[in-house]
Amino acid sequence: MPAAVVHPCSSDGLVGPIQAAERGLIKPILVGPQAKIRSIAEAEELDISPYPLIDVEHSHQAAEQAVAMVRAGEAEILMKGSLHTDELLHVVLNRNTGIRTERRLSHCFLLAVPTYARPFILTDAAINIAPDLITKRDICQNAIDIAHAMGSEEPKLAILAAVESINPAIPATLDAAALCKMADRGQIKGAILDGPLAFDNAADQEAARTKGIVSPVAGKADILLVPDLEAGNMLAKQLIFMAHAEAAGVVAGAQVPIVLTSRADSVRNRLASCAVAALLAKSKREGVIGHKAGGQ
Amino acid sequence: MPAAVVHPCSSDGLVGPIQAAERGLIKPILVGPQAKIRSIAEAEELDISPYPLIDVEHSHQAAEQAVAMVRAGEAEILMKGSLHTDELLHVVLNRNTGIRTERRLSHCFLLAVPTYARPFILTDAAINIAPDLITKRDICQNAIDIAHAMGSEEPKLAILAAVESINPAIPATLDAAALCKMADRGQIKGAILDGPLAFDNAADQEAARTKGIVSPVAGKADILLVPDLEAGNMLAKQLIFMAHAEAAGVVAGAQVPIVLTSRADSVRNRLASCAVAALLAKSKREGVIGHKAGGQ
Repeated sequence: MPAAVVHPCSSDGLVGPIQAAERGLIKPILVGPQAKIRSIAEAEELDISPYPLIDVEHSHQAAEQAVAMVRAGEAEILMKGSLHTDELLHVVLNRNTGIRTERRLSHCFLLAVPTYARPFILTDAAINIAPDLITKRDICQNAIDIAHAMGSEEPKLAILAAVESINPAIPATLDAAALCKMADRGQIKGAILDGPLAFDNAADQEAARTKGIVSPVAGKADILLVPDLEAGNMLAKQLIFMAHAEAAGVVAGAQVPIVLTSRADSVRNRLASCAVAALLAKSKREGVIGHKAGGQ
Repeated sequence: MPAAVVHPCSSDGLVGPIQAAERGLIKPILVGPQAKIRSIAEAEELDISPYPLIDVEHSHQAAEQAVAMVRAGEAEILMKGSLHTDELLHVVLNRNTGIRTERRLSHCFLLAVPTYARPFILTDAAINIAPDLITKRDICQNAIDIAHAMGSEEPKLAILAAVESINPAIPATLDAAALCKMADRGQIKGAILDGPLAFDNAADQEAARTKGIVSPVAGKADILLVPDLEAGNMLAKQLIFMAHAEAAGVVAGAQVPIVLTSRADSVRNRLASCAVAALLAKSKREGVIGHKAGGQ
């Protein structure tokens, strides 16, 4: 799966994709200042000779070149190297030359926690700050696409809020109800939704039963949709740093998956992110997943 | 079933309850200026001697006296005679001396249309102008109570909107989704809810099927919840004046049912309204229906 690696001008930014290539997950195409990349490879004792290297002057040009390669069908994954996420996404989202779709971009954490029976997706804890209902619809559909790519045919999606009942003073509970009805009406496809669910009801069937919640999702969630970035980010970081979650991350909603690993990620997490992106790219190639937004 | 008849100082206002009494539907207690009521009875050749007559000076005093009788348990139905609806409801809703409950008051039309397979309730086409979500919850629960009183154990409630999909620009579609989730969570009890449904989907199973709507309510609705007074009032009047509906009406949500017939109603419709009010009063007496609002 050819992956355009944007400006891999740091050890982390170069080591990650090369390791992923050595494990057969991706075929990196390095896009950045040639001299700089070669000197890093030398310092890290990496053999980058098997991989194409497109020479550009600076990070912005690297982003533009990599995105152009995606548009031309030459790359099916976009990987961030050592440039700021905003700089990359700005090029991705350009209305004329970018690779946006009708869907909003959103980020999915894939998490495996020792204390929970199954791996799950947490979204969106990284891109959308205070998503409105239509953005949440796209966030759901992006996560469902990833779950499908990973082999879950009908994932269970829990829409999290602070409470499990409808309360007009807590807008997330109203959005949750609307998202469930969108799924009933085919405006969101391919998953079983329920919400609002508080975190305990979503994660633990017994907690849900105690509260008298009859839900096909409670305690069996494959996807957790958080109400906003603040809640999601804290939840994700708690899971990674205190509940010892293994984590991967990928951005969906563009024409190809985007890998946005950060310097804090472990090698294991970087490889997992590449693997997920590759699965999603494969699904897209096979036409299993479209780019279109839901109904309306 | 003792019914306090408030200020029956017109032919219509007096004839209705006496006819209902003669058919064994209610036991009227006439509350109003004695001399005026007697002279109307004489002119209409009505024998009012079997019925208690509480002499008061004017319509406002009649309302206060009738409501006080309800509070004292002496009347289980309140019937409007010849005073303005607002004047009566103002006394009903008085926080200290009225007969309000935790629920909002709402009006239900009971309609039987030759072109629809079953009688149904249309609400609220008369009291709540632009109900918010919590008011809509009460409107639903009031209508469900009436459906229960009439023998429908688990009525199907269609939440009407202009479209059947969720559209944030059409607030009624969001309220519909929230009401459905409230039913899932036990915040509304005793009915199967679905919505948003457009009128055609709600009334006609084939129309719903054509649109791909899978709904336990479509084409089988026992209760239609309208988004606001404008839509509801026009729909009700169209049904009565052009689709030849037989109609009854009752106000629920107070400590006892309130009959608000208007001068335009036929004798048949007045009697039907008394019958419905008597059924609802009987349910309340038997404790089948409480006064409490839903969860939260």
